[in-house]
Amino acid sequence: MLPALVLHGGAGDVDDERAQAKLIGVQVAAREGWRILNMPEGSALDAVEAAVRVMEDDPNFNAGIGSVLNFDGDVEMDALVMEGHKLEAGAVACLRDIKNPVSVARLVMEKSEHILIAGQGANRFAEEQGVARLQPEELVTKYETKCLEDFKNDRKGKPPGVGTVGAVAVDRKGRVAVALSTGGTCGKTPGRVGDTPLVGCGGYCDEAVGAVASTGHGESITKACLASSIFNLMKQGISIQNAADESCEFLTSRTGGTAGAIAVSKNGETAVAHTTDKMPWAIVSDGELRAGVKWGEEVSEKI
Amino acid sequence: MLPALVLHGGAGDVDDERAQAKLIGVQVAAREGWRILNMPEGSALDAVEAAVRVMEDDPNFNAGIGSVLNFDGDVEMDALVMEGHKLEAGAVACLRDIKNPVSVARLVMEKSEHILIAGQGANRFAEEQGVARLQPEELVTKYETKCLEDFKNDRKGKPPGVGTVGAVAVDRKGRVAVALSTGGTCGKTPGRVGDTPLVGCGGYCDEAVGAVASTGHGESITKACLASSIFNLMKQGISIQNAADESCEFLTSRTGGTAGAIAVSKNGETAVAHTTDKMPWAIVSDGELRAGVKWGEEVSEKI
Repeated sequence: MLPALVLHGGAGDVDDERAQAKLIGVQVAAREGWRILNMPEGSALDAVEAAVRVMEDDPNFNAGIGSVLNFDGDVEMDALVMEGHKLEAGAVACLRDIKNPVSVARLVMEKSEHILIAGQGANRFAEEQGVARLQPEELVTKYETKCLEDFKNDRKGKPPGVGTVGAVAVDRKGRVAVALSTGGTCGKTPGRVGDTPLVGCGGYCDEAVGAVASTGHGESITKACLASSIFNLMKQGISIQNAADESCEFLTSRTGGTAGAIAVSKNGETAVAHTTDKMPWAIVSDGELRAGVKWGEEVSEKI
Repeated sequence: MLPALVLHGGAGDVDDERAQAKLIGVQVAAREGWRILNMPEGSALDAVEAAVRVMEDDPNFNAGIGSVLNFDGDVEMDALVMEGHKLEAGAVACLRDIKNPVSVARLVMEKSEHILIAGQGANRFAEEQGVARLQPEELVTKYETKCLEDFKNDRKGKPPGVGTVGAVAVDRKGRVAVALSTGGTCGKTPGRVGDTPLVGCGGYCDEAVGAVASTGHGESITKACLASSIFNLMKQGISIQNAADESCEFLTSRTGGTAGAIAVSKNGETAVAHTTDKMPWAIVSDGELRAGVKWGEEVSEKI
């Protein structure tokens, strides 16, 4: 069943037009991730990074361009990568003005002694590594500018922030990896860090078990330590789908928040779970790309 | 067996003189935490915050005054609090010039919609909450200035950063809580965030199970998601001491790093574990305060 790749484009409720755009977006990202995963030297890590980069570059997702705006109207992005052989990980939080935060996270993993670098330190690290800095307005879309206005006009409404992106994969050699990227929640306090860059909350992997990525309300995911929770159930021998379903349902019953998750086992089994109405997802394995947004609706193609 | 309180003063190797000072420090903090825990309105959360504040104010620990310096020679501090009833949590990362970061973490938990706020945003939040800002030099000790010089002169040496502080408690009502605070690792990249403020890595708790706090090499703890790992073993019914020992040993065998942990169950059982030679610890329960630093050596007093 190897290799296998699973993607998500953010758990949460979006209108049908945007849901359709996200469905197309995860399919495009899945094809690119799969292409990398099947190259002679392609690895799970390369594939999840490539898939997340495609979604960061798509303004229909809340990551890279199209990220939500914080209360000051600025984009501050979080991202994580982790690989399951040595448990190496790299992450950035509150990164500004960078096109692909996931690739800065990978640089943290490969070029620093640390796992997570936040704020101005993250931008300084990116600069030292030669990563180009954009102008602040380059990541801001009209859609998100309007979302922040709406949020400020109606503070009672739940802040929209749907569209975090994530990917998990296992390659032919049994290597597993996870990557995530997000702009966080609309109207967030500057400096706020969600679950996405946190090992164990946003993502986790170990080649002895598999890889997991979370999405949804970041603070609820953090309280439930969702990725670690799913991972630990898988480690105990519970089936991957049950592990993902049980942990998402526990999160919702225990915290009142909603969330979703994707997972892949070391053997190539896959799972998609969410307690939201919608979550764009894609699974590629056994020569087939399946994708969907709503419960019970999916499209598939040979790949 | 309720209430119970367990403290640590950082896993790692320190000389005997400093170890003795830390031993006295955890005893002083334990007495203060126990006093709060036994007040009519005292809660586990109040007790762990109070105990950590005492250690933040003691220059013999790497938290608050006495924090290690980053590569630029600045103090950047991380802290976390979590309570086990609603799984509410608050944390700060890379906070500067604040006497008691653990209390800012509690403000994040109680006064914001977020869990983790990093960098300049954390200081801005603290200012908005009326927390006094110190002059940058007020947290810097001669000891840590010398440590940074030594680190820069011998980059091959492992960066010293021993002395993170943490506390877990269960009160008479069965409420559990955890608090942690640290200056991180000496010579760290500005913006580096260790395990301490990360839910599931530095600490975790749920009143259905108990509370856990980690200490040691932050990047290794993060890779192993140590607090969540111990917590999940406790949840499976493994004894608290075995859960802590197994997870610390797994961390060391899987990542090559060293670590320690303290834990308390909802029933008041306690555990202290470490794969380092030394870790200052204190346990208060059943009218007795026990404390130690090295394996097999402990002191006790009635309390």
